[in-house]
Amino acid sequence: MSHSIREIATALGAEAAGNLDCRIDSVSEPASAGAGALALAMDPRYAEGLAKGQAKAAMLWQGADWQALGLEAAIFAPRGRLAMAGLSRMFDAGPEIAAGVHPMALVDPSAEIGEGAAIGPFVSVGAGVRIGPNARIASHVSIAEGARIGADALILQGARIGARVVIGDRFICQPGAVIGADGFSFVTPEKSGVEEIRETLGEREEIRAQSWTRIHSLGSVSIGDDVEVGANSTIDRGTIRDTRIGNGTKLDNLVHLGHNVEVGRDCLLCGQTGIAGSARIGDRVVLGGQVGVSDNIFVGDDVIAGGGTKIMTNAPAGRVLLGYPAVKMDSHIEMQKALRRLPRLAATVAALQKAVSNSG
Amino acid sequence: MSHSIREIATALGAEAAGNLDCRIDSVSEPASAGAGALALAMDPRYAEGLAKGQAKAAMLWQGADWQALGLEAAIFAPRGRLAMAGLSRMFDAGPEIAAGVHPMALVDPSAEIGEGAAIGPFVSVGAGVRIGPNARIASHVSIAEGARIGADALILQGARIGARVVIGDRFICQPGAVIGADGFSFVTPEKSGVEEIRETLGEREEIRAQSWTRIHSLGSVSIGDDVEVGANSTIDRGTIRDTRIGNGTKLDNLVHLGHNVEVGRDCLLCGQTGIAGSARIGDRVVLGGQVGVSDNIFVGDDVIAGGGTKIMTNAPAGRVLLGYPAVKMDSHIEMQKALRRLPRLAATVAALQKAVSNSG
Amino acid sequence: MSHSIREIATALGAEAAGNLDCRIDSVSEPASAGAGALALAMDPRYAEGLAKGQAKAAMLWQGADWQALGLEAAIFAPRGRLAMAGLSRMFDAGPEIAAGVHPMALVDPSAEIGEGAAIGPFVSVGAGVRIGPNARIASHVSIAEGARIGADALILQGARIGARVVIGDRFICQPGAVIGADGFSFVTPEKSGVEEIRETLGEREEIRAQSWTRIHSLGSVSIGDDVEVGANSTIDRGTIRDTRIGNGTKLDNLVHLGHNVEVGRDCLLCGQTGIAGSARIGDRVVLGGQVGVSDNIFVGDDVIAGGGTKIMTNAPAGRVLLGYPAVKMDSHIEMQKALRRLPRLAATVAALQKAVSNSG
Repeated sequence: MSHSIREIATALGAEAAGNLDCRIDSVSEPASAGAGALALAMDPRYAEGLAKGQAKAAMLWQGADWQALGLEAAIFAPRGRLAMAGLSRMFDAGPEIAAGVHPMALVDPSAEIGEGAAIGPFVSVGAGVRIGPNARIASHVSIAEGARIGADALILQGARIGARVVIGDRFICQPGAVIGADGFSFVTPEKSGVEEIRETLGEREEIRAQSWTRIHSLGSVSIGDDVEVGANSTIDRGTIRDTRIGNGTKLDNLVHLGHNVEVGRDCLLCGQTGIAGSARIGDRVVLGGQVGVSDNIFVGDDVIAGGGTKIMTNAPAGRVLLGYPAVKMDSHIEMQKALRRLPRLAATVAALQKAVSNSG
Repeated sequence: MSHSIREIATALGAEAAGNLDCRIDSVSEPASAGAGALALAMDPRYAEGLAKGQAKAAMLWQGADWQALGLEAAIFAPRGRLAMAGLSRMFDAGPEIAAGVHPMALVDPSAEIGEGAAIGPFVSVGAGVRIGPNARIASHVSIAEGARIGADALILQGARIGARVVIGDRFICQPGAVIGADGFSFVTPEKSGVEEIRETLGEREEIRAQSWTRIHSLGSVSIGDDVEVGANSTIDRGTIRDTRIGNGTKLDNLVHLGHNVEVGRDCLLCGQTGIAGSARIGDRVVLGGQVGVSDNIFVGDDVIAGGGTKIMTNAPAGRVLLGYPAVKMDSHIEMQKALRRLPRLAATVAALQKAVSNSG
Repeated sequence: MSHSIREIATALGAEAAGNLDCRIDSVSEPASAGAGALALAMDPRYAEGLAKGQAKAAMLWQGADWQALGLEAAIFAPRGRLAMAGLSRMFDAGPEIAAGVHPMALVDPSAEIGEGAAIGPFVSVGAGVRIGPNARIASHVSIAEGARIGADALILQGARIGARVVIGDRFICQPGAVIGADGFSFVTPEKSGVEEIRETLGEREEIRAQSWTRIHSLGSVSIGDDVEVGANSTIDRGTIRDTRIGNGTKLDNLVHLGHNVEVGRDCLLCGQTGIAGSARIGDRVVLGGQVGVSDNIFVGDDVIAGGGTKIMTNAPAGRVLLGYPAVKMDSHIEMQKALRRLPRLAATVAALQKAVSNSG
């Protein structure tokens, strides 16, 4: 795979200079770049690295003097990370999956697979499944009965798509993700201790033995277009209605969505975040790593929560959160500062108390 | 699959009214219910939804006027969630796995599979395995040598049952769960930094280079009856004795149990909870999502811990916990209230100090 | 598998007494030991258990009177856990994987597999893969195109090794681990809300709709010698350069390493710990369970962090950390003590305020 500087600049909508016919076969950090690579030096601090590497072309910061840097050609990107998106897409070979259905894949005769599919070995596709055109499905994937997946899906090794799950176009599923496990929903014949302490915030009248009866999950999972699900993440089916994910939302690795959860569109849920059952997340919400959201609460549009935040009550739209329990990020910073000084404050109060009692 | 209102009411031990022969083919939320569905409206606030949907029968709150709601039949459930358990079991079709052993499954000739088994494609069953009657084993599951599993097991896609693991009856295993990975146990030739700071609570005399020697896991995992393990959860084998889970205990998705851990009976461990090595959890313990339990400690019977709680010392029976580090839930609420006011308190103390020093 | 007391003592470099030819076929806790077992009683409190079990030989604490304990033979280990490492290695049968390549495994003709390999059923090995001698690869594993793995690898059920991943010798991979998923890296056309609040620590000027463009991962993952990766852990590939793990580092279950992360040598990362993208972890770092490390920060050599710690800023070498946000462990303990007394402190201040205002 190679592209000329001209092709790359055009694809990125960026300006270029020098020999626009120069061919690029890879993308590299400046210091380790080979002769055919495009070095990424979108900040002046990478200039030094350019001298160490072999690259004849680079993507540079605005206003860089490419000739003084000894280059034959250069691309100028006003917003480096955005240029990276386009550039990385051009050079991503994607997984090697041979065209057609591998002889060691099992596709139920009633399944409909769109044109241009590449389905790897040890894949199992159940009865009544419908998959859109240009699907790329890597080895060991299972897609259970009645699932429907849109066009241009990329489903990686060992991912599990459950029965009757519905997914839109351009779906990307990382290895080992499980979409459509049963919800975690159990009930006791009489009021359970958990129900009791939710009302009393901690007080318990009497502790009784109790065992759990399972509530089965009759719903499934509905996922919009342009969604990505990370490696080994898990999404449970709903109890009656479906668990839902809106268009454009991205889940990182090891993320957990409980039953009945609804996540809006264009959200980012970072690694190891968990959303408990029946919680609703608005649009464009960003949850950092290891965030937790309690069951049955609502997180408004455009909320941003820093890493480790535990959201335990409804959060209004636009709120920026941090901490356990979650509070506004600036309050959290102020509270933590005060907490660090608390041992000293306690000593001050003790001294004051003494002074006042002496003077009294 | 369809049931009459009479059959459903009898199965749930609930009262019914109207046309008891009315056939029900599914369960639905009121507003989206089709004509054959039983609408779930166990609270008056769902009455409006009934008018929007097509359902001719509903499960209603006690005392509801089903005729005024335009229904042909109704079921009355005194404890809605408990009724849901029975109802959802009746309407759960379960996964489609053809009866018998799929030709693309590999079952070792020395394995004993009970009557009525349904074993899917790409399943691997090792030497000496014994599985009870009526097992349903979905695609891509592996069951390693010497494992024993009781009657009526449901083991879903890609679950991993390790060598010599022993499991009781009615086991449910969600996709991707790993039961019987090796424990995470390493030792340094001399006392490690971790051993040192456990004694000193933070002080370190001298920092030495150290590398880790592996302690292999010779034990396995023993699991009781009526246990469920969530998607992509992991349970490590014990070092010498087995890691143990008691009857009736349920694990949610992405839960981690370290080596030698013992969990009692009828516990609920919610999503992403982790129990470190050699910790012991009593009976009927409920741990919310993302709870952590430190290694080698004991959590007493009937303990309930809210989401995100990190239990770092022994917890007495019946204690209700919250926070990091865990404290009694009511103390936590009081501490957090005070912490929110702490910046103001510090200002008050500063003013007091000034007043006292002026008056002194 | 059986060994004499003499063989075991020699292998452990430990002293032995009694009948050194006594054959041992297993290792056991004292109370449940069979006649052929070596009972582990490395502390006097296990003496009682010895009387209950059948063991004729035991590993004992220094100075124990083995004859008075009714034993025929004994081994004395000065550092019990270290002896356990050697002992457990001697008695670990390892997984049963038949020698050679299973007829139901698919190995690309261009792959090079070293001598002595045992490759189980439903394994997929891609084009150009190179695996060193004595590999043991259990069922359902996938190794994608161009991956290279050193000598003596043990890769367990359903693990996923991505394209072009490079791994050293003596690699151990627990079931379900995913090495080489795509990084979680997205960009908005204009500055995103997350970028904004990182600068302002919480303030937002204007909230705009935004959707995410994907940055593809062109890098891979590089792993040193003697590394172990836990069950269902996930390691993302780098954006341009590789994500890296140094020699001798061990990852527990459900650990997450983001794209571009660099972890040094001889580290321990305990269960459910997550390292966000581009963070760098030094050598000999020990992170307890459920620890989080923010993106783009640096954690120095020999840092130790207790369970649940969230490291949100650079941590200097040798620091012992606890808490969210992470502070020095002794500061954390002091702060938590003060926080527990805070409600009382607030009452004291209120009383003081009253006293001062009365006297003023």
